[in-house]
Parts: sequence; structure tokens; C-alpha cells
Amino acid sequence: MNRTDTVIGVDIGGTNTVFGLVDQAGKVHHRHLVPTKRYPKPRELFSKILDTILLRNRSSDDPFNIKGIGIGAPNANYYSKSIENPPNLPWGVVDVAGIVRSLIDIPLALTNDANAAALGEMRFGAARGMKNFVEITLGTGLGSGIVINGELVYGHDGYAGEIGHTVVDIHGRQCGCGKKGCLETYCSAGGLCRTVHELLCNETAPSALRHITFADLTSKKVFDAACDGDFIAKMAFAKTGRILGQALADTVAHLSPEAVVLFGGLAAAGEMILDPVKEHFEQSVFHVFRGNVRIIPSRLPADDSAILGAGALIWHEISSKDEN
Amino acid sequence: MNRTDTVIGVDIGGTNTVFGLVDQAGKVHHRHLVPTKRYPKPRELFSKILDTILLRNRSSDDPFNIKGIGIGAPNANYYSKSIENPPNLPWGVVDVAGIVRSLIDIPLALTNDANAAALGEMRFGAARGMKNFVEITLGTGLGSGIVINGELVYGHDGYAGEIGHTVVDIHGRQCGCGKKGCLETYCSAGGLCRTVHELLCNETAPSALRHITFADLTSKKVFDAACDGDFIAKMAFAKTGRILGQALADTVAHLSPEAVVLFGGLAAAGEMILDPVKEHFEQSVFHVFRGNVRIIPSRLPADDSAILGAGALIWHEISSKDEN
Repeated sequence: MNRTDTVIGVDIGGTNTVFGLVDQAGKVHHRHLVPTKRYPKPRELFSKILDTILLRNRSSDDPFNIKGIGIGAPNANYYSKSIENPPNLPWGVVDVAGIVRSLIDIPLALTNDANAAALGEMRFGAARGMKNFVEITLGTGLGSGIVINGELVYGHDGYAGEIGHTVVDIHGRQCGCGKKGCLETYCSAGGLCRTVHELLCNETAPSALRHITFADLTSKKVFDAACDGDFIAKMAFAKTGRILGQALADTVAHLSPEAVVLFGGLAAAGEMILDPVKEHFEQSVFHVFRGNVRIIPSRLPADDSAILGAGALIWHEISSKDEN
Repeated sequence: MNRTDTVIGVDIGGTNTVFGLVDQAGKVHHRHLVPTKRYPKPRELFSKILDTILLRNRSSDDPFNIKGIGIGAPNANYYSKSIENPPNLPWGVVDVAGIVRSLIDIPLALTNDANAAALGEMRFGAARGMKNFVEITLGTGLGSGIVINGELVYGHDGYAGEIGHTVVDIHGRQCGCGKKGCLETYCSAGGLCRTVHELLCNETAPSALRHITFADLTSKKVFDAACDGDFIAKMAFAKTGRILGQALADTVAHLSPEAVVLFGGLAAAGEMILDPVKEHFEQSVFHVFRGNVRIIPSRLPADDSAILGAGALIWHEISSKDEN
């Protein structure tokens, strides 16, 4: 019997952990979700993940061949294969490689979610066939994964791709990282909500958003208001897009990528964010790049993107090894 | 007889072209200089370079084995091996590979001077043994070469490393590229002189520089004044260093390099520029990089750096091929 090759893809989030088996065509099998916080000890979480997957696979009529495990997690370090003080989780430093190796003997790779998304995009999404591109993940924060010559850039310490913490305005908004004016304080779900409140102060236009507290506002509510024609909401998207477009001009000046792929909740707002990003990117970028760098939305399916990214990470490692 | 292996290193500048033979230890032999403008047709320049080198080598008692030719030039494209409308030279688009191949049959590589400097630094200078670093060249403008995993980053179009055209202040100084507020309008020899004039307006301190016209001011004169204790000159260096340190924080957030190497005329001002760069870099950089990225001066000998860089470029290509 010819078993189909798959890898385990795991995405550890502050709220939920999702996992499943990813085949070479980018199809996800045996998808599962567990609340991350139910496992105060990471070993218990990994035990649960592996037990669930292996049991379900074994009991299947047509079990898969499992070739490796790829993991996306906050504050994950590719080199040390550890997770280091993830925000919102009481884990401290977690030796992921050690834990997983004690449970199963298959190749393992680990990186942060933005890097995993970039590899997912390259293998299964909008960056298929590209060798040089940048993935920008617009979620609660702004993450990024940089691909050069077909390889993810980790850098000397493994922390490359912190574009969310480049500075837009040195006197700007307080960032959770301790600095002021970081890009992610403007261009992220949280940044969009902060911009709404800035506009509520500075503008006099009526707005449905004047009746929502700062604590209750979400990017989804801003999006819905914008779809209803709310001036403040539309202006907030326009400003977010302008700042992101200007920032991407600097990223492109560093790297000369073929494309910038926008991924995540905010990117799902479509033209409302893409149009101002493109417009201001073209206005701001160094002339040799003008008209030559595509800014495009992700083509990873939203439901499976995190598992696909984590799966792509380990598929990438296995394929690279096979080539050498 | 065992001939010593060398490569031809050529640096084409707007004023002078320098060339020589570079051995594997980084020693330059048969150094020559010709005024670039004496050769309105680039073919004549390359003819002159090759005739000079080959004749001198042949007539030597102990001729070298010449294994390749590396060329650094403004607006050089690594992929197309051409020079495209270099500023200050009436050449248009020059098919360098075509011209050189018609004159001599050896491996050729071509890139811009900042990229060549980065490879020179990696092979012969301050970045020896490094796999991930950024070279910043502070000359008339600000150039940069980015090395990731031991390879220069060219990007999709071959134009990576335009850090000089990232934007410091969107409403800032007019740049020659057409944009406003590019880093090189602040952090370069020209940028330093512009900053002096800004300070002459804004400050009331007496200064020797109040007696020099804008047209006559050079970074050397600012440096000399600063060494004499001139307040405006010292302040100009401090501001230049501050802006560069803040900008490098953004570059490091992209790339996680081991070091940033400062090269070129301005970098030769030593602590006067290095100290404020380091101070503001550490203040501005994302916390995971704090204390972990070295900012260091070039260790390429000033006289030979351009030839060494161009030589390192082709040595790098030859060595990579030998490894595969």
C-alpha cells in the first residue's frame, strides 16, 4: 500500500492551538483545535497534539505516512528550537525540540507564525514560484517573514523580520515593546482601532464609532462601519494603508523583493486597505522599484493558513535536505 | 613554476577608475589609476585596463595567474552584468559582460561599489567570518550592501541595498532621487554639510564654518573644525550619528545581522560619528537586538578598499563554484 506523505502542522496561539496533517498539495487532514491555556505545561500540550494526531491516523482506514512536524508559535526561535517567554502564556523558556523528541522521532522545525505564513505562502499560496518576497501579517500586531533566494531570512540571532518594530514616528504611539511609534502601533488590528480614536478626536464627522468604547472596538467593527459608508472608519483604513505603504517602500529599498504579500485579519478588508497601501507605496518608493513590486493579498485559505504555514516550514526543510 | 592566483579588481568611479590584481590573502599588486572621463567610450576604458594589467603582468619576472575579473561601478546590475546610465558618466547602458568577453575570456562579476565593499569586508576586512552583516558606505551618498547567510542580497531585480533611499522624514530634505527626506540627505558627506548649514541657521554659536560658502564646504572641513572644538561642527556630527543610529535600528529589525560595518569618508571620522550612532542605535532598536549587534568601522585599507571589494566579488564567485 502506498501511503500519502504528510507532515504535522501545529500553530500555537495565545488562545487556541490548531494542528493537522498537511500533504504535499497543501491539503489539511485531521484538523484539530485545543484551547492553549488548558495546558499550563507545554509538555502536556505537545503530548495531547501527538496523541490526537497519531491515534486518529492509526485508526483511519487509509493512514498517512508522517514525515515531520512543523510548529509556528509566538517568540519561537528557529535556531534554538525553543519558545522564549511567549506573551500571554506562562511558559517561560520551552525546549520544544527536547520535548517533542522525547515523544516522537521525526524531523522538527519551529519558527514564529509570520515566518511560517511566509513559507506557507511560498509553497501553497500567492508567492508560489517566488524566490524573493516579504510576507506581512496584519493581526493583533504586525509580523513579517522575509524570503531571499527561496530561503527564509532568520539572521544572526534568529530574530529577523521584526518589521512591526521599525519606527514610523519617533514621537509616536507607545508600543507594547517599550518603544514609541512602531509600525505595528499604526498598522495592525489594534493600530486601526487607535487610529479610529485619533480621528474621533480630530474630526467632527458623525460616526457610529462614537458610540463604542475604546475597549469594545474591534477591527471587524471598523470594517463593518466602513462598509456602511462611515467617514471615520473609511478614513482610518485610508490612514492605516498610507502608513503601511510608506513603510513598505523602506522595506523594498532594503530587499528588492518581487512582491509583498499581505496576510491576516486586516488584509481581509481587501481593497479598503490594499488600495491606499499600493497608492502610497508607489508614491514613496525609490524610483528603480516603481511599478516593479507587486503588493498582493494572501492566497492561503483563512481557516487553514496557520496549519499550512507550519506544515510548509517542515516540508521546506525536508525538501531542501532531499535536494542536497 | 607555481604562479600565485589573483583576480583583477576594478572600481569605476565618476572621477577615477582604479584597478589592480588581488591575491587570495587580500594583497593588491600592480595598482593603477586612470581618469574615467578620459574614456568617453567604456570599451576604450576596459581595453586600457586589460592592456595595462596584462602587459605589466607579462613583463614581470614572476607573473601571476589571473583567474577572473570583478568590477564595482555606479548603477551596476549584478544580474544583467551591465552598467545602466551611471550618474556623471555619458555612457548610457553599457553591456560590460559583452565588452570584457570580447577582450579576455575569464569569469566576470559586476556589482555596485557598496555591494563590492561588503564582499571586500567579508573576505579581507572587519566582517571576516561573518555570515550576516550590513555594510554602510558613507561617501558622497549612502550606499549599503546586505549579506545574509554568507551571500550578498541582490533581490528580485538586483537593486537590493538601497538603504540610502529609505525615508527619515517624509517632509524632509530634497533628495537627488526625487523623493524627500531620504537617509542619504542626512547621513553622507553631503548630508553632513547640509546639517551644518541647518545648524548655522538655527544656532547662534560662533563657528569657523560661518565663513565658508555652502559650495565650498566639505565633510573634511567639518571634521577639521570639529577636531578644533567647533560647536556647530561637533553638533553636526552628533546629529548625523543620531539619525544614522535610529535608521540602523530599522535595518536591524529587518535583518537581525551580527554587525553593521561603517565604511567610507565619513566613517573615517571615527568616534565622532561612531559614538552617537551606537548610542542612538541602542536607544532605538527593538529589545531583542539590544546589546547584540556590533556597530564597527571598516577594516579595509582606505587606499585599496575599492580594488579589494571588486576583487572579493569575483573571488567569492570562483570559491562558491569550487565548493559546488
